[in-house]
This record gives sequence, structure tokens and C-alpha cells, in this order.
Amino acid sequence: MQIFDTTLRDGAQREGITYSVADKLAVARLLDQFGVGFIEGGWPGAVPKDTEFFERARTELELQNALLVAFGSTRKAGVAAADDAQLAGLLAAQTPVVCLVAKSDVRHVERALRTTREENLAMVADSVNHLRAHGRRVFVDCEHFFDGFRFDPEYTASVVRTALDAGAERVVLCDTNGGMLPSQVSKAIAELVERLGVSPESFGMHAQNDTACAVANTIAAVEAGVRHVQGTANGYGERPGNADIFAVVANLQLKLGMTVLPDGCLEQMAHVSHAIAEIANIAPDSHQAYVGSAAFAHKAGLHASAIKVDPALYNHVDPAVVGNDMTILVTEMAGRASIELKSRELGLDLAGLPDTLSKVTHRVKELEAAGWSFEAADASFELLVRQSLGEQTTPFTLESYRVIVEHREDGAVVSEATVKLRVRGERVIATAEGNGPVNALDQALRQALERHFPQLTGLELADYKVRILAGSHGTDAVTRVLVETVDTDGRDWTTVGVHENVVEASWRALVDALAYGVAAAGGDRKVRSRR
Amino acid sequence: MQIFDTTLRDGAQREGITYSVADKLAVARLLDQFGVGFIEGGWPGAVPKDTEFFERARTELELQNALLVAFGSTRKAGVAAADDAQLAGLLAAQTPVVCLVAKSDVRHVERALRTTREENLAMVADSVNHLRAHGRRVFVDCEHFFDGFRFDPEYTASVVRTALDAGAERVVLCDTNGGMLPSQVSKAIAELVERLGVSPESFGMHAQNDTACAVANTIAAVEAGVRHVQGTANGYGERPGNADIFAVVANLQLKLGMTVLPDGCLEQMAHVSHAIAEIANIAPDSHQAYVGSAAFAHKAGLHASAIKVDPALYNHVDPAVVGNDMTILVTEMAGRASIELKSRELGLDLAGLPDTLSKVTHRVKELEAAGWSFEAADASFELLVRQSLGEQTTPFTLESYRVIVEHREDGAVVSEATVKLRVRGERVIATAEGNGPVNALDQALRQALERHFPQLTGLELADYKVRILAGSHGTDAVTRVLVETVDTDGRDWTTVGVHENVVEASWRALVDALAYGVAAAGGDRKVRSRR
Repeated sequence: MQIFDTTLRDGAQREGITYSVADKLAVARLLDQFGVGFIEGGWPGAVPKDTEFFERARTELELQNALLVAFGSTRKAGVAAADDAQLAGLLAAQTPVVCLVAKSDVRHVERALRTTREENLAMVADSVNHLRAHGRRVFVDCEHFFDGFRFDPEYTASVVRTALDAGAERVVLCDTNGGMLPSQVSKAIAELVERLGVSPESFGMHAQNDTACAVANTIAAVEAGVRHVQGTANGYGERPGNADIFAVVANLQLKLGMTVLPDGCLEQMAHVSHAIAEIANIAPDSHQAYVGSAAFAHKAGLHASAIKVDPALYNHVDPAVVGNDMTILVTEMAGRASIELKSRELGLDLAGLPDTLSKVTHRVKELEAAGWSFEAADASFELLVRQSLGEQTTPFTLESYRVIVEHREDGAVVSEATVKLRVRGERVIATAEGNGPVNALDQALRQALERHFPQLTGLELADYKVRILAGSHGTDAVTRVLVETVDTDGRDWTTVGVHENVVEASWRALVDALAYGVAAAGGDRKVRSRR
Repeated sequence: MQIFDTTLRDGAQREGITYSVADKLAVARLLDQFGVGFIEGGWPGAVPKDTEFFERARTELELQNALLVAFGSTRKAGVAAADDAQLAGLLAAQTPVVCLVAKSDVRHVERALRTTREENLAMVADSVNHLRAHGRRVFVDCEHFFDGFRFDPEYTASVVRTALDAGAERVVLCDTNGGMLPSQVSKAIAELVERLGVSPESFGMHAQNDTACAVANTIAAVEAGVRHVQGTANGYGERPGNADIFAVVANLQLKLGMTVLPDGCLEQMAHVSHAIAEIANIAPDSHQAYVGSAAFAHKAGLHASAIKVDPALYNHVDPAVVGNDMTILVTEMAGRASIELKSRELGLDLAGLPDTLSKVTHRVKELEAAGWSFEAADASFELLVRQSLGEQTTPFTLESYRVIVEHREDGAVVSEATVKLRVRGERVIATAEGNGPVNALDQALRQALERHFPQLTGLELADYKVRILAGSHGTDAVTRVLVETVDTDGRDWTTVGVHENVVEASWRALVDALAYGVAAAGGDRKVRSRR
């Protein structure tokens, strides 16, 4: 089975993604670590950045598993392959493999390419021959294959046949507009095999997600005998995107029992997925299949007791196999069992402490009834458990704070906060400005604490979420604030605060965030990094 | 074909979603507008909020297309159905249809439910009989059907058989852990039909997205003869979520040619999808199949001209059919044509004023680039258009404001705001307290204006939503505030404000809200009620 990744070529079509050459090299290393067989790096000659990528790759990339692939198109109409600048650019990239896109829908040949059916076939044959003559392995992407095959099966099949006869190692059937369903993919491939009398193993599959079936369409193609699949990291791509190569690979390996990656690679999947998202500067989708942070999250409640007995009853695969882990969400439906489970996950065993367990369960229910939510706020939950265990978790006592927001005559908007605390018996007063009331409070609080807790300097407020509960009451509704904090080691944790006053709600979340940070830096906490 | 939506029950399991009862009513109205046949509203009796939802639904919901469904479970082990409090709660909800979840995997029966195979069958039979005897239509969700059928086909089939014999209208085959692939779904359904000798039309399909195949698995079930499909808006749900009902329905109608919605409903899809995302307070996924703002996005360049010649060559369906648009915009708003259209909708004809139209278009693009969104803020958009027409829309000029939030030594949290304005040439200073900074500002502003604009006394702040944009920067990110205002005649309008400071962002939305209210009360506006 050939696992062909096009994150750096087709995947880069996703609006908002712009990789630097260094980014592309980093992504290629991650994909190689994940164990794909082919990495399509871009279109050398046509895109300057891609030309540079292939140049630098020769000296800077040491790939263990993957071969680099240069992408390009068949020669221009009416030009000899040997004289085609674009094909020359592909050879200049010096990759062992070239992937050529060819038009295979006669309507696109005539209306978009504006040439004849015959010339298009000649363009395919000449281009493949030319690259083969220069020792390249050649794959041919048949653009709009499925739409073309439905409209004019004979012509579309003749393009496939021409590519194979010219020496293409694989002809990739592309659902370029993404409109197919799995059953239609199976049927089309069976008809093509029938018509050409060749093995489906000479075909590849390239699916787009416009019907939300890209992964399923790819799996259907494999079940129809195809032995080359294309996809992109996290399904990045134009429109709804491409087939998510992570879901495709995991399904092939874990659901169909095919070994398509080198040993130990599948366990890299979640990490590689998140790392590539970071480089693409796209927030990881917490609900992504297999790799999302919530992919194995359970709102325990009723089920918790059973999950405790046998997690396999509630997970379709063992999360560890794809480098992910199971999370228990503490929610409205939380019972003793799930809270015990959650505490254990955080390294606090309440099994032997029924009274504490009851106290925590009662407290959680009470707080959640008041609008708190611990399902996304592990750190606040852990602090709550530790308080119930008699720990003093907040490293200071608040005397008072004041926040002022002014819109001045000159139009300037300024925020200023003053906090008065007792830290280790000493009274501290600190004032700071910020670009908003919460930012000002955060600055003032850090200022007040930093002399006693230098480790706070390393903490950064990574995300701040506000949700108005019981929305029907307008501004007098209860406000829930979630604060995500990151430390210098990249560990992160989330805390929650609730109050009818958004500033006080934010204050409570900030206090938990720093309290947890102080303890975490002490190293006596197993802070879980989101990667 | 039965289209069964469970956005409000299973979909609400998604991490981070917490609907108020008002939210649930609003979502139900949108789903009905989309034309689904069944809306599962929650678990009355077990979840207080859901009990209230069904109560209020009886008087506040007028559904055109859908029937309300109450969700619950089979009776407790060892309790007569008539004595089962949970079943009583389902009847008390007074819905025409009840959906019962039953265990159908013997491992879950024995380890999670901790009862016998026989008692579980009796629980199914008794519960269905009991509800049927009270005149309810009954659907039975067979939890963990596919895993159970693989492990012990005979027992799992006996649960299905028992439910059908007891009078269940449909038995829904649930891939609760979400581990299935389409081919496995087809195979299992064929085996079940074979084993029970019943028509597949008596079955339903409930898919989860853990293999990224939820939509495809649902389609596969329909191709296997199933005639009841369950899904959620935007695929919201636990872990990677449920089958996205929008993609499922669009695939059934546009790809398999089945008519599953009333005429005119499919065109509502994109709007309903985005509106539900707003209520759930989840940023819409721009890459979502069919409804995403980028679902029909095309990179300009080579293709552009060909696209103009024949868009059909590049779109798998006509975007208008699902209420989407091929012109790629962050919101539905930023094009000249759409702005002209929108203005006309608000009673302002810009057709004859090309310069004004350009000015507004430019301004909207500018503001949306800075994080504003007029999709949900008609009132702010109308004020913007009227300003471009030279109208003085704000009935005062701001000199300055100051908001103070204090957390005092005694623990009390107080908010106070002072505004200084010029109203009709007169300088006004007003100070007010509130339970939060925004509420205090709102009170002070009204106080300052009410003598000149008594109609403001009738205005109520109905909803207040905060979204942090570019979250990666924590509290220094840009904040977008949406304010919904209602007047005494029940007319409502929404305004928007954006600023890095949440207080200033709220101020801007408040000013628009009152400015619009002053004008609206004047009666020269066709204020549209959102519901």
C-alpha cells in the first residue's frame, strides 16, 4: 500500500495557510516521522517557494521513510515534452518521483484546457515518457476522473489507459470536485477495471471532502482493490478539504487490519497532527477523529462505573495506539464514580476516602448548578479536590481589588487595576495597566506575586473564553470565564471562574490559573500538556 | 424517510455546549424551519432543564414540520414499567413520540447494567408496551448495536426482535462507540435482515464520527434499506461528534435523489447551520461540507475564467440549492451585490446610489477585517448604511465614560459607571451602579438619555454574547460583543461592537442598541423580530 501525502501541495490550497520554506521542511520531517511513503512537496518551477523547498530538501532533509515527490502538469498543448519549461522544472527538482496532473474529463479538456481530445492524450503520453526516460517514477493524477467517467466513460478511460501504457506506475483517480459517495466510488472503480482489464492495484485514490465522505471514499477505493491513497494532514485542503490522512491510515491499520506504516509510527499520529497544526497556524480541532483532544473524551455520569470496570467497552480503539489518551469530563451528570476516576487520572486517589469523595461530589454538583463547568477546567477541579483534602492551594489572601476602565475625552480607552493582597504574611499593593480590565488585573496580580513566586514570570495567558449563561437575562446573567495558561515548558492547564460580574468571574479563573502555576512549577503536579 | 434530529439531546453531549431552555426552544424552531420530521428535545424527568423545555414547548413552540420526541431509557431492572419513575417522566412530557435507549450488547447488559440477558429483554418489552399502551409512537435506540452484533449476534438480534414485537415503530441501530466503516455497516444490516427476516425499513441508523465516517455510515445504512436516519446540526456530539444531519440530508437529496425535506427547506440549510452555531456559541466551521463559508471557495487564477464560463465544472452542486454562495466571503455580507440586497431588505434602496454603495461595501469589508460581523447584527448594519446616507443616527455625542469594578474587603463586588454626554446641546452627567461593568454602563447611559428619549424606558437588554477573536493572544485578543434588545412591542434587534477592551466593545454595541431603539420607537423602521 502506498501512503501518499500531499499536505504541502494540495493541502496548502486551504485558505489561510502560507508555509515558509522552513515550515515546509518542518512539516516534511513530521510526515516522515509519521511514516508516510511519499511526500508531495509542491510544484517546482511554477512556484518559486517550492523550487527553493526542493533545493534545500536535498541538503537539509534526511528522510527515513518517505520519498519526495515533485508535482506538475502534463506538457503544454502543441509543445514537445523536451521543450516544455514546466517539465524541465520538474526534472530540475531531482526527486525520485514525479506526480503529473492530467485532464481526464473531456469537458475540462475542451473548455478549460481549450485543446482537443487527441492532443490531451498525446500530452499525457509524451510527458510520462519524457520523465520515465529521465529515470523518474511517475504517478498520474487524473483530474475530475469521477465526473468525467460518469459523463464520458470511454474518453476518461482512454486517458487512464494512455498513462498506464506510457509507464505511469500508478494512475490516481481524483474526485476533484468532491461530490462522490463511497458506493459510487466502488462502482466506478469496478467499471474501470472491467473496461480496461487491468488490476485495480495500478490505481490510486484522491478524495475531497465536499460530501463529508472523503475518508470513506478513500477506504471504499482500497476495498475495491486500489493500493495507493492520497491525503493531507488533518484533512487540510481547498473547500471542505482533502481526505484526512490520519483517519485514513488509522482506519486501514486498525479497522481493516492492513499494515501500512512502519512499526511504532502510528503512535506518533496525535503528536504529528498537532505539531503540523501549530506550523500551519490553525487551531487543532479538538473533535477530530482519532487525534482530537476530545476524540476519546467521555461525559462520564451514568457510564463512569462501567468505564472504570472496562474502558474497552466505551472506546472504539485504545487511545494510546494513536498516541492519544482518554479523558473523563466532569459534567452536570457527574457522579461519585466519575469524580473518583477523574481524580485518579490527576494522580489523586480518593478510593480510600469516601467522606472526601462525597464532599467533592457534593461541591462539584453545587458549583455546576451555579454555572461552573469543570469539563474543560481540569486545573480548577484538581485545586478543588486538593482543598477538600485540606490543602492550602491559593498562595495568597485577597484583601481587595479595583479595576477602572476609562474612555477619555481624547477617545483613548485605558484600563487600570489595583490589587491588595497578603502574601506570606506580607501586605502587598500593586497597580498595573492593561488593554482591558482582565488584562490589567492579570498584570497587577502577577506584579504583586512575582517577588515571592518568580516562576510566575514564565506563565502566559494562552486563551480566554467568555460564556454568558442563562442568556435570556442579558447583562445580569451569570458569566463563565475559562482561562488557559501555558508555562515555559509548553505545559498548559485550564481554569474556570463564574460570577454575575464578568470581572469577578475572570478574577476567579486567573487566581486558579496562577495558583495552579505556582504548584505546577513546584513539579508536584502532573500537568498534562495538550501537545 | 424519517429525518430524526438529536441536536438537543445527543448533540448537547459535545464538550462545552450548555443550552438554556430559551436556547433549546430557538434551536427547535430552526430545525423545524429546516424541515426535519423529528426533534429529540432531551430527557424529561432525568434532566430538569429538559423537563422545563418540554413544558414550555407545549405553549411556546408551533412546529410546522417536526414532531417533538422525548428521550429516555427502558425501565429499571426489577421494577414494573408502571412503577418506573423515569418512564412516568417520559409520559409526563406529553410528546407524540418517545425514543427509548436499550442495551443491545450483552457485555454492557452484564457489566454496565449489571443485570441478566433475560431481564434486559423484559425491560425492553415492558417499556415499549407501557408507552404504546399510553398511545405513544415508540422508537428504540439499540445502544452499541454494531459492537454487540459482532460479539454476540444472536443476543443482539434478540433485543431488536423484542423491541419490534413489542410494537416499536423503528429500531435504531447505534454505532455508539463510532468504530464502524460503511462496508461493515452494510454487511451487519444485511445479516440482521437475513437473521430476523424483517424489512430493513423497520430500522434506523445512528452514527458517531470516530472513524470520520459518520455521514458515510448513515448513507450506507440507507443504501441497505434503512428508512430512518439520526443526526445533529453541524455534527455536534460527544467525542468526534455525530453524523452531521446537514451533510446527510444534502447527500440523500442531491446525490441519491431522495426527497426527504419539504419543498424550499434545503435552501435554509446554510442559514440554519450558522444560526444554531451562534446559539451553541461555537464558531461556525468555514470548511464544513455544503454549509461552510469556504465550502464552495475557489482559488482565483487559472481556473477563474473557466469558472466564469461554467461554474458547474467546478462545483459538485449549485451552492444556492443549499443556501450557500460561491462568492467566497468571511460572512454572507461583504459583496456589493449582497449589500445592495441586504439594504433593500431593510427598506433602503442603494441601487441608484453607486457611490454610497461603494462606500458602504468598503466600510463593511474594513470592519469585518477588524473582527466585526454583521451577519447577526442587522441593526448595526442599518445604522451604518444610514450614516453613509448622511443621517445622524446617534442621538448624543460621548464626552467620556468611566467604569469602576471593586472587590471590597467585605467580599462585596460592586460596579459603578459614570457617563458624560452631550444630548441636544445639553451636557449630561449620569452615574449608575450595576451587577457588572456593562450593566452599570447600560444603566448610566439610559439615565443620561431618558429625559430626552422617554421611549428608552421600554427597552430591555435581552441577550448579551461575547466572543474572543484570535484567541491565541489571550486577554489582548479582539473581543466581539453582540447585544440583543427587545422593546415593549416584543420587537427585537441585534447590534455589534468590537474592540480589544471588552468594556469598550460592549459600549459600542450598547450605543447602537439604544440609537436604533430611539429610531425604532419613532416607527420609521421596519424592525424585524428574529422569532
